[in-house]
Amino acid sequence: MATAGKVIKCKAAVAWEAGKPLSIEEVEVAPPQAMEVRLKILYTALCHTDVYFWEAKGQTPVFPRIFGHEAGGIVESVGEGVTDLAPGDHVLPVFTGECKECAHCKSAESNMCDLLRINTDRGVMIGDGKSRFSINGKPIYHFVGTSTFSEYTVMHVGCVAKINPAAPLDKVCVLSCGISTGLGATINVAKPPKGSTVAIFGLGAVGLAAAEGARIAGASRIIGIDLNANRFEEARKFGCTEFVNPKDHDKPVQQVLAEMTNGGVDRSVECTGNINAMIQAFECVHDGWGVAVLVGVPHKDAEFKTHPMNFLNERTLKGTFFGNYKPRTDLPNVVELYMKKELEVEKFITHSVPFSEINTAFDLMHKGEGIRCIIRMEN
Amino acid sequence: MATAGKVIKCKAAVAWEAGKPLSIEEVEVAPPQAMEVRLKILYTALCHTDVYFWEAKGQTPVFPRIFGHEAGGIVESVGEGVTDLAPGDHVLPVFTGECKECAHCKSAESNMCDLLRINTDRGVMIGDGKSRFSINGKPIYHFVGTSTFSEYTVMHVGCVAKINPAAPLDKVCVLSCGISTGLGATINVAKPPKGSTVAIFGLGAVGLAAAEGARIAGASRIIGIDLNANRFEEARKFGCTEFVNPKDHDKPVQQVLAEMTNGGVDRSVECTGNINAMIQAFECVHDGWGVAVLVGVPHKDAEFKTHPMNFLNERTLKGTFFGNYKPRTDLPNVVELYMKKELEVEKFITHSVPFSEINTAFDLMHKGEGIRCIIRMEN
Repeated sequence: MATAGKVIKCKAAVAWEAGKPLSIEEVEVAPPQAMEVRLKILYTALCHTDVYFWEAKGQTPVFPRIFGHEAGGIVESVGEGVTDLAPGDHVLPVFTGECKECAHCKSAESNMCDLLRINTDRGVMIGDGKSRFSINGKPIYHFVGTSTFSEYTVMHVGCVAKINPAAPLDKVCVLSCGISTGLGATINVAKPPKGSTVAIFGLGAVGLAAAEGARIAGASRIIGIDLNANRFEEARKFGCTEFVNPKDHDKPVQQVLAEMTNGGVDRSVECTGNINAMIQAFECVHDGWGVAVLVGVPHKDAEFKTHPMNFLNERTLKGTFFGNYKPRTDLPNVVELYMKKELEVEKFITHSVPFSEINTAFDLMHKGEGIRCIIRMEN
Repeated sequence: MATAGKVIKCKAAVAWEAGKPLSIEEVEVAPPQAMEVRLKILYTALCHTDVYFWEAKGQTPVFPRIFGHEAGGIVESVGEGVTDLAPGDHVLPVFTGECKECAHCKSAESNMCDLLRINTDRGVMIGDGKSRFSINGKPIYHFVGTSTFSEYTVMHVGCVAKINPAAPLDKVCVLSCGISTGLGATINVAKPPKGSTVAIFGLGAVGLAAAEGARIAGASRIIGIDLNANRFEEARKFGCTEFVNPKDHDKPVQQVLAEMTNGGVDRSVECTGNINAMIQAFECVHDGWGVAVLVGVPHKDAEFKTHPMNFLNERTLKGTFFGNYKPRTDLPNVVELYMKKELEVEKFITHSVPFSEINTAFDLMHKGEGIRCIIRMEN
């Protein structure tokens, strides 16, 4: 391509400081170095993690920065040593990676790559410790190795999943973070048997994706638990059959669920990160076979507490990161699940705005409206 | 048989009150009622659980009582409705049962039968709420449905495992409780892959059986952790390759193990019941794939505490009861594992005494000498 090896000038939404609206700027995007690729982003979505680090309340502030990590694009050019990807490939950028060489990548059970595991504090490329973004020669920092709020971005090849070019990028872009996280938590980790009962704690995007996973797995009862009853009607589309609002009960949620299910649910998936919900999600599973899966990220000072007999009575508690999907190996198969119409992606996409209106997506998330807002880079 | 349907007079070791030496008495053993069988016990062993409830420190005292639950015997007669067993069958009595009809028995994942799950407070048969043992017409109570410190005992058919009659009962009798508990915790629940590293907390009979399970599963490093270094040499026979005595270190055991294993062990099995050991056993497993299994029974006021990120980083914590073996379905296969010489049972048996010297077995256990003491009923 004509741009390969050259600096590209393009538009990016820059966060100059914490919590201030993003500003569309012209940035310079350097060519990819060894084991890097430069992507043309076509669609990106806003995920809660972007907002969390943009607000930087207690997080390490890294500014100016280009946020964005849930996206779909096309490879523009590749750096030295890149053999798995070529210009024109359709890809999903991922906030965590798969080097294929470390103990985690070689283990069938882990996706927590030693080299490319998510790092929210680092704003530069791991190869040379520098940013590929600049304005007037001053660096603009990366975010989780993706920075998809830019028409072009540079990423480590290990964080880029090559997908079926027939898949519509304006839909499957949402599979690069939250939806796959919830879906995989149920399908890969909780593994509900057909006909089983599954409780989902928290009915945001991740929780709804966990419910969708339970629906795909053939669970017959899917119980959604949320403090916001407005979410219940929407959640039916994702397979939820029943709802519990903890505010409606004097008893602990564990007890409410045990009474609804003859002793406990078969599987539970916790998608809020609230420590009390985590404990409830564990204690509500049936003895003998119950499995609880933690997805939501807890407060740094949180403490998980329970009576050890709850374990001894043959309950299992597991955590998952990115739904246990290995980004490069497994994400293409998640896209295929959509192509085969088993996974319904459209219902997660409730809004869409042009790039110039990216701050609207932040407003929608603050108001808790909708599930995913797609940001169209080209129009 | 000539004795079928009649009361049998025989010798039993009666605990008249908590903590006092057992007394060999002539007892009357009533015939088995519906769904019950009467067994002639040939060999029994002493397990720590017998001592625990005999001491009755804080436990519900149920006296006079006949203890004993780790044993091997032969069916003498069967009650109405019993079709699975017949006089002459070689069997292992088990302290917990398998009705084959409840949700737990029907689940492939559970062995916690609703009907026949262990009950340490009940001293009578579940059919009619009465004891089958008496002296001069006064009832002597049962213990966990087994009461094997008697030449004859009556049990619910659901707690009796029929085994290969070629198996030597003086050896395989130890498979009816502790050894299977530890073995199954590793083989059925922790499931260490070949070549993996396994930590075993507590090197008593159950812990040594857990190590034996790791050896059979093909683990390449088996690290024994115990506060009593005298156990380390013996533990080598059970596959332990390395040892850690927490007393030798200023650092937490989790950290010692992480340093020995490049970040954590692949599997751990906790066999002490000490709450700190439980937390250590969980926190010492590797992120990404580590699985910790709790076996030891905790204090009733114990609280399991950890930072939830330890789960989120893809660690799993599970508990097990009786090594997840279903008594009737699975114990015969454990016996076959011994018959095929894969499981070595002899090394667990360090002492043997005639029935008349049963109190010697209690003395040995109090002193912490040996692993299992076989009590020979006939000589």
